[in-house]
Amino acid sequence: MAFSPLVDQLLDALRVLPGVGPKTAQRMAMQVLERDREGGAQLARILARAVEEVGYCARCRTLTEQTFCELCESPRRDDQLLCIVESPADMLAIEEAGGYRGRYFVLHGHLSPLDGIGPDDLGLDDLDTLIKDAAIDEVILATNPTVEGEATAHYLAQQLKPRGIRLSRLAYGVPMGGELEYVDGGTLSRAFMGRQPFNE
Amino acid sequence: MAFSPLVDQLLDALRVLPGVGPKTAQRMAMQVLERDREGGAQLARILARAVEEVGYCARCRTLTEQTFCELCESPRRDDQLLCIVESPADMLAIEEAGGYRGRYFVLHGHLSPLDGIGPDDLGLDDLDTLIKDAAIDEVILATNPTVEGEATAHYLAQQLKPRGIRLSRLAYGVPMGGELEYVDGGTLSRAFMGRQPFNE
Ligand SMILES: [Zn+2]
Ligand SMILES: [Zn+2]
Repeated sequence: MAFSPLVDQLLDALRVLPGVGPKTAQRMAMQVLERDREGGAQLARILARAVEEVGYCARCRTLTEQTFCELCESPRRDDQLLCIVESPADMLAIEEAGGYRGRYFVLHGHLSPLDGIGPDDLGLDDLDTLIKDAAIDEVILATNPTVEGEATAHYLAQQLKPRGIRLSRLAYGVPMGGELEYVDGGTLSRAFMGRQPFNE
Repeated sequence: MAFSPLVDQLLDALRVLPGVGPKTAQRMAMQVLERDREGGAQLARILARAVEEVGYCARCRTLTEQTFCELCESPRRDDQLLCIVESPADMLAIEEAGGYRGRYFVLHGHLSPLDGIGPDDLGLDDLDTLIKDAAIDEVILATNPTVEGEATAHYLAQQLKPRGIRLSRLAYGVPMGGELEYVDGGTLSRAFMGRQPFNE
């Protein structure tokens, strides 16, 4: 015994969402069918439109349904600074942190030879065009501080160095508000090596 | 700064799902847009169909897109036993526990005067018809062991007693204040076996 065929199909389909197991899928289906059909219909409509219409910005490759994203359209950003990130979520996190006023480029992943993800899959041709066309002074390699992110940053650095563009990488260190005893050893020793003069 | 208008709408729409806050909605949207568009399109299609087509079984009122649910269509169930539950999820939990071979009736809620939920909202007219038409020997009041579920059971008992039908309630064995949907199968089937005559 299970639910009806269509409800069972809905339970299966919900499993595409991250962190959704059988019990959560059931709770979600019951919420939508028993308590909020209009909300469910709205989600179905928006989701269908989003997977159909959302593509990549023609300049920075972030997710957008427009040709250029709002950030690329803005005249108030510094064209001489380019920050390369792995994902649109990373781009949003940096924007929410505030302080950065340059442009972005989104790789949608990182180099991963074992998964067959090479330079072509990260839009590096588009990056080339972008860098050629704009008068970029500095590229910030803001890929994740993981093994794959590091490897990707190193690859990008090799490609960009011959162009005489200044390259930088986010500083490693202890996270603000964290407690030293809970910071992993690798991060701590990088924070020690990168220590800065103390200014009161 | 946020994502594009359509992606932001998707984040909002996902919040209809229970337990989904802003960060989870973002993870879900990124999963669907960055890694599994086909899964997202499939979810949108099934969800749209489900909220449109899934209705109530004409006999037991459980969720189904057919006129009668599979359980009501089955000739192998005992027509003399009727189990009244609050939700389709409760019905499924009892079926998965095993042991019960009768029919069901689903209230889709419980009496809740403060929320304006009265007998009419629980399909009690349909219940009346069902009980009149079938030769029912015993009704098991399997509403949740909560204050509202108890009150609903008492109300149902008052309505059904004059008809001379035997009434029972699940044995305590099910934890007070819990919801049937989350009770383990062993406890549920013990509670079924130990069901007691209903005393007001
Ligand atoms: Zn852009
Ligand atoms: Zn039915």
